[in-house]
Amino acid sequence: MKDLRQITVIGLGLLGGSIGLTILRCFSSVKVIGYTHRSSTRKKARDIAVAGEIVDDLKRSVLGSDIVILATPIHTFEHIFSDIADALSPGAVVTDVGSTKVLAHRWAKKHLPKNVHYVGSHPIAGSEQRGVEFARDDLFEQADCIVTKNKDTNKQAAAAMVKFWQQMGCRVRTMSPAEHDRIFANVSHLPHITAAALLNANDNEQLKYAGKGFVDTSRVASGPPNIWVDILMTNTGNCVTSINKLQKELERFKTAIDKGQRDKIEKLLNSARNKRTSLIKQKLKRKELLP
Amino acid sequence: MKDLRQITVIGLGLLGGSIGLTILRCFSSVKVIGYTHRSSTRKKARDIAVAGEIVDDLKRSVLGSDIVILATPIHTFEHIFSDIADALSPGAVVTDVGSTKVLAHRWAKKHLPKNVHYVGSHPIAGSEQRGVEFARDDLFEQADCIVTKNKDTNKQAAAAMVKFWQQMGCRVRTMSPAEHDRIFANVSHLPHITAAALLNANDNEQLKYAGKGFVDTSRVASGPPNIWVDILMTNTGNCVTSINKLQKELERFKTAIDKGQRDKIEKLLNSARNKRTSLIKQKLKRKELLP
Repeated sequence: MKDLRQITVIGLGLLGGSIGLTILRCFSSVKVIGYTHRSSTRKKARDIAVAGEIVDDLKRSVLGSDIVILATPIHTFEHIFSDIADALSPGAVVTDVGSTKVLAHRWAKKHLPKNVHYVGSHPIAGSEQRGVEFARDDLFEQADCIVTKNKDTNKQAAAAMVKFWQQMGCRVRTMSPAEHDRIFANVSHLPHITAAALLNANDNEQLKYAGKGFVDTSRVASGPPNIWVDILMTNTGNCVTSINKLQKELERFKTAIDKGQRDKIEKLLNSARNKRTSLIKQKLKRKELLP
Repeated sequence: MKDLRQITVIGLGLLGGSIGLTILRCFSSVKVIGYTHRSSTRKKARDIAVAGEIVDDLKRSVLGSDIVILATPIHTFEHIFSDIADALSPGAVVTDVGSTKVLAHRWAKKHLPKNVHYVGSHPIAGSEQRGVEFARDDLFEQADCIVTKNKDTNKQAAAAMVKFWQQMGCRVRTMSPAEHDRIFANVSHLPHITAAALLNANDNEQLKYAGKGFVDTSRVASGPPNIWVDILMTNTGNCVTSINKLQKELERFKTAIDKGQRDKIEKLLNSARNKRTSLIKQKLKRKELLP
């Protein structure tokens, strides 16, 4: 990947648009091609110039590209892999920025030709905003990015993707797709399910009395449902395991409260508080939170 | 309560200290007496002057006061009611600022003399900070305050407490203690339990990958465990009911995810998101959140 000349970004929402803008800023000599199937989005993307060329032909968009990045909803990946398979250049690296990784690896293996290398990416960046009009060229600055690889993954391609995301401004960590999906079920998908379940357990009449605590605890549930359905649908086993864990912890609280076991309740609260204190310390140390 | 001359604040932490400072600002002719059993806190309270007089004798602190406000942990209320019973002036109004109200009403009825009026208060104000050194005279500005009364409550005393908290800067709503504890189990105690359970369901190794979403979803679990044990221990029945509700909602997610029911998952996510959208709209309208 020494002579990186052309990158294709498939899907031009907030993430895809921001990838385009960031490549243009960080890799000045690289040609960026953006594809989106919506003509209204193509118009906006051209106005903002998130890529040097914005096209409406998926196959043609990947011709001659060294890296192809899928920034579409996860459920579209399998079709897109299949559609672009024949048009990809030998040696090209294909990646995606979806929030789950096991199925992406599986679909890539099934549909991409042997002379093309798939590597998974999960840049942990985004915002409550949606659409290419919110694209920013600093979205990935100091963001974590997980690069996933397994025994089938080409080592040079994985190393190239690590370097790519670092140059985009990310702090990169690598792991297997299975490990990724297990960890993120717990630290990301479970909080989303929890926040949504907490809202669903309350009626609008009672929510008039909800304070700042409730507002924060439920914040993530304002995320786009269509994106989240994709995430949950592509990580079902791990999500079920994570929900089971949470239910077990809730059961502990319920039993202790029901029995009026003061010491036990305090122990559970202290354990949670200590975990959060470590978490915040670590985030401050890594400058992911402001003091 | 036309000629309000003297108010006693029992317990001088962040809340008690702030009550003292706010009375001094809003009721210039009223004498404020502060009681705390800790000599180190008395010294600090005197330095900051959260009350005109800071005393170490509980009984004497309430002599001749028109209003007596308990701002100590909930589990101390019963003893304090019993200890001050004989020293209260006829016609005095006793209240507390605890986060649960049914037991406070019950204990007051059991221990306070007939010629003294108990009314429950729950000013929804506070901060992550603790101790009289963080006391502020604007803590109650625009804060909600629930005043609780039941069939035993003296109407004039309840009206006087409503007026008192309004003059302190609060937006006051009244309800029965039973309704209060049922509502707050859902909108406040359940989010706390949920946040704590979510932390306990994760190990420190995985929490390295937790992002801003997790940090927000778990924020309330950093609250002081000793205060929260008191809250949960004095609202056991409602908390168990609320946890049951949440478990039912989690079960819905789990079943839909396990079965890969895309439409059902999206419906659950949409329902949660719509509830939060209404909540935020309402908070913006009431200026409880900044746009």
